[in-house]
Amino acid sequence: MGLFSLKLESLQQLFVRELRSLYDAENQITEALPKMIENATVPELKEALEEHLDVTNQQITRLDRIFTLLQEKASGETCRGIKGIISEGSDLLSTGGEPNVIDAGIIAAAQKVEHYEIAAYGTVRTYAELLGNSEISQLLEQTLDEEKEADTTLNSIAGNVNIEAKAA
Amino acid sequence: MGLFSLKLESLQQLFVRELRSLYDAENQITEALPKMIENATVPELKEALEEHLDVTNQQITRLDRIFTLLQEKASGETCRGIKGIISEGSDLLSTGGEPNVIDAGIIAAAQKVEHYEIAAYGTVRTYAELLGNSEISQLLEQTLDEEKEADTTLNSIAGNVNIEAKAA
Repeated sequence: MGLFSLKLESLQQLFVRELRSLYDAENQITEALPKMIENATVPELKEALEEHLDVTNQQITRLDRIFTLLQEKASGETCRGIKGIISEGSDLLSTGGEPNVIDAGIIAAAQKVEHYEIAAYGTVRTYAELLGNSEISQLLEQTLDEEKEADTTLNSIAGNVNIEAKAA
Repeated sequence: MGLFSLKLESLQQLFVRELRSLYDAENQITEALPKMIENATVPELKEALEEHLDVTNQQITRLDRIFTLLQEKASGETCRGIKGIISEGSDLLSTGGEPNVIDAGIIAAAQKVEHYEIAAYGTVRTYAELLGNSEISQLLEQTLDEEKEADTTLNSIAGNVNIEAKAA
């Protein structure tokens, strides 16, 4: 491989690329969540999003640890998937409307974020296992479990919020 | 609600907005899949993507039926989430590299697409149920099941492809 080649010649390179994209994704999420929290009206939704902001910061620390273990830089990739999903969420907030309907829309946007992350963390966790790095694999598994848990929490909040939105 | 107001005043309006976004998403996917198919090298991956292209076209027909039932236009929303995810996939193909590594990257991109759709179809299926439209709810449930099935198929193909990519 040439010194300046950017081609993906190994699973290890794809692994680092995907991790960098996730690192950027998590940072985008920490920037976007405060506006979602501010606009959410149902207290249990506000609380779940606040808790998820804390969890996201811990996930960033976990990724920092992974990049140290890999002796790789964390920066270098923009996560356009999360950028697009977040811009849909911001658009919802600018559109505005009945608070209960906006709450339902915030949940829908947040679940898209969670599912994107479930797919992406599932992938890198599998790569870490294959590459024989069990410490990194366990760190990624921990985050993957948290994302699945966040999705389940949003599902249970959605039950009440959607009923309120229907009555709006 | 004013005649020109775009605010979301009801769950029904949010429902139609989410459906339009999905309609745009499915159309973007039919445009993106042929390039993925062309670049995939493992026959079972090529085949799974070709099959998913057929399924996606059926899902568009199902959405057309839903818009007819709702007496609403299908167009009007751009799905920026899928746009971002697809642009990540296109970027992977332009980067290029070892065919087995690219196959692994195609699977990772396709699983992000599937998970986005699992979240989005899960949401609109629930809205349809709440709004008392069982025919539409069933149509959306059918698509949701297909997206979950596609994700499972990609998972099983990933098993072999990732091992090949590791050996690259």
